[in-house]
Amino acid sequence: MRATLMYDAGDVRVEEVPDPVLKEPTDAIIRVTYACVCGSDLHPYHDLQATPEGRRMGHEAIGVVEQVGSDVARLSVGDTVIVPFAWSDNTCTFCRDGITTSCVHGGFFDGAPSATQAEKLLVPQADGTAVVIPEGTDEALMPSLLTLSDVYLTGHHAAHQGRVEAGKTVAVIGDGAVGLSAVLASKQLGAETIILMGRHEARTDLGREFGATHIITERGEEGIDKVLEITGGEGVHVVLEAVGHMLAYEQAYGIVRPGGVISRVGVPQYQDAPVGFASLFGKNATLTGGPATIRAYLEAALPQVLDGVIAPGKVFDRELPLAEIAEAYRLMDSREALKVLIRP
Amino acid sequence: MRATLMYDAGDVRVEEVPDPVLKEPTDAIIRVTYACVCGSDLHPYHDLQATPEGRRMGHEAIGVVEQVGSDVARLSVGDTVIVPFAWSDNTCTFCRDGITTSCVHGGFFDGAPSATQAEKLLVPQADGTAVVIPEGTDEALMPSLLTLSDVYLTGHHAAHQGRVEAGKTVAVIGDGAVGLSAVLASKQLGAETIILMGRHEARTDLGREFGATHIITERGEEGIDKVLEITGGEGVHVVLEAVGHMLAYEQAYGIVRPGGVISRVGVPQYQDAPVGFASLFGKNATLTGGPATIRAYLEAALPQVLDGVIAPGKVFDRELPLAEIAEAYRLMDSREALKVLIRP
Repeated sequence: MRATLMYDAGDVRVEEVPDPVLKEPTDAIIRVTYACVCGSDLHPYHDLQATPEGRRMGHEAIGVVEQVGSDVARLSVGDTVIVPFAWSDNTCTFCRDGITTSCVHGGFFDGAPSATQAEKLLVPQADGTAVVIPEGTDEALMPSLLTLSDVYLTGHHAAHQGRVEAGKTVAVIGDGAVGLSAVLASKQLGAETIILMGRHEARTDLGREFGATHIITERGEEGIDKVLEITGGEGVHVVLEAVGHMLAYEQAYGIVRPGGVISRVGVPQYQDAPVGFASLFGKNATLTGGPATIRAYLEAALPQVLDGVIAPGKVFDRELPLAEIAEAYRLMDSREALKVLIRP
Repeated sequence: MRATLMYDAGDVRVEEVPDPVLKEPTDAIIRVTYACVCGSDLHPYHDLQATPEGRRMGHEAIGVVEQVGSDVARLSVGDTVIVPFAWSDNTCTFCRDGITTSCVHGGFFDGAPSATQAEKLLVPQADGTAVVIPEGTDEALMPSLLTLSDVYLTGHHAAHQGRVEAGKTVAVIGDGAVGLSAVLASKQLGAETIILMGRHEARTDLGREFGATHIITERGEEGIDKVLEITGGEGVHVVLEAVGHMLAYEQAYGIVRPGGVISRVGVPQYQDAPVGFASLFGKNATLTGGPATIRAYLEAALPQVLDGVIAPGKVFDRELPLAEIAEAYRLMDSREALKVLIRP
C-alpha cells in the first residue's frame, strides 16, 4: 500500500510500504477513506531530525473496516468508522475517568508504526477506539465527521476542561483549525462573549461564523490590553490556548480573570513556564488541558454532526489526493490553506 | 499601643507605636484578643532585607470592635470578630465570584501599615471583611475560631479548589499547620484515602487524628514511589501542596493521577516551573490554587467550629503573650512549635 513518510524537516513522500497485518486479537485494519494534515504535523515538518527509515505520518482518519482480530466484538467488516488520534481500550480505570489519552493499553498514532496518512491503518484496541458511523450517512458529512477524530473535539476538550458554560466570557488564542473549533465548541456550550485572537482574515471570518463575537488581531501586551478593554478591565473567565508557544501562554495569564481558567490544547513547545504569584497563583487562576480525550466525547458529538447542529468540517478549505500530500503540508505551512482533506 | 515589628531577618521586636485611627468611613478598629504566627511569617524571618523603619507583622486575628467608621453597618462596638488575612468589600464582581483575595477594594494585612500581631488593628472594608462571633461563645473555642482567619480555611481552600469529594484519593504535601488543616478539610469533604507527606512525628500524629490514612516520610523520588505504591501505580486524584518549594511541586506532578488536580496554597517561592508534556500536559493534570479566599468560606465554617464538628485549633501547641512573640518565631522556625497562639 502507499503511506506518507517524513524523512527530514520539509521532506514528505508517499511511498510503497507493506500492508499492515493483525498482530493482537484486539486489532482491526481499516481502509482509510478520509485523512488530513494536522497543525501538529507541522512541528516535525519544521524540526524533524534526518530519519533514514522515515517517520509514518497522520493521526486523523475515517475508514472502512477490512479485518478484525478474534477479540473484536463491536466492529464488523464493512463498517465505516471514525478513529481518534489516540487508541484506548475504553475500559481501564483512566478511560472510565474519561482520560482516554492515558489508557493503560493506549497509544498515539503520531509516531506509531501504522499511521493514518496511508491507504490502510492498523487500529489497536479496535473495540475501544473506533466509533461506527451509521450506514447510509450522507457522504457530504464525512469532512465534519473526520474532525471528530481530532480537531473539533480538541477544541471541545479545551472548552470542556476550561468549564465553558452559559454566561462565561471566553478568549480563544489561535486562529488555526483547533482555535476555530474551540470557538464553535464554546458557542455550543453556551458562551456569550467569545473573543478570538488571530490575525488571518479568512480564518477569523470563519471564527465569526462559528460564534466569535470579537476578533483581536494584536498580540502580546497590545493583545492583552484589547481583551481587558473589552472585559471592562476584568479579564475573561476562560482562556482556550490553541497555539502551544510561550507567547500564547503569556497572553493567557495576562487576560485571565481572577479565579479563571487557562485551558491548553496546543501541545506546549516549552517545558517550564511562569506559574508563580505574579502569573497564576496571585489571582487563583487554574491551568488545565492536555491531549484531547477525544474518545470520551465522540459518541455525544456524533449526532450533533449527523443532525446538522454543527458543521466543524468547514475548517477544510482544500482537498488533495494522497499522492499530493506533500503539497498539502506546503499549503498549510505557508498558511495558504487552513486544513487540507486527504483522500487516499 | 504595642505592635510587632521585624527589622531584619531574625530580628523581631515588640515596640510602642501610635494607635491606629479611622481613615475611611468603611474602616473599623479592633482590640486584638487572639493573634498567632503563620508559617508564611517565617519567609521574611529568613530573608527580610534590613528595614530601618521596621515591618509590621501578622495577618490572623480575633478581636473586639472598638470603633467603626460612619459607613460600617454590620458591626457594632463590642462585637467579637474574626478578621481574615485579606480584607475585601464582599460585594465587588470578584468577591461575588468568591475570589475575595482579588477584591477591587481589597488588600493583605501582611505588609500593611496595620497588622495583627499588635494590641489594636485597623480593619479596612470592615463590613465586608470581619465576621461576628456570636455573643457568649465559649472562650475555649477561640483558638479554633482563630484558624478561620487563615490556616484552617487555607487548607479548606486547597481542598475546595482541588475538588476533593467522596471517593477521591488525596495526597497532602507538607505537615505544617496548613498541611494538617488540608487533611482535616479533605476529611470533611469526604475523601477516603488521605496520604500525608511529612516527617515530623508529632505533626503527622495530629495528621492521623485529623483524618490521614497514610503517612509518608520519604521525599523526592522515594516519596513519589511510595505514593504510587499505595495507589496501585495510578497516582492520586488530588494533590494539596502546602509547602511552596520546588521540591514539593515536583513531588506533586510526580504523584498526580492522569486527569487529577494539583492545588497549591503554599505561596510559591519560585516563578517558573515545569508545565510541559512531561509534567502536567501529557496527563491532563490541572494546576490550581492561590491565596485562600477565606472570606468566601467563613460563614459556612463558623458553625462547624461552634458545633464542635471540627477542632482545627489543635494546630496550636504553644501560647505566649505578645511581649514574647520573638520567642514564638524562634520556636516555630526551629520546629519546636507547630503554631504559636499569641495573646496581646
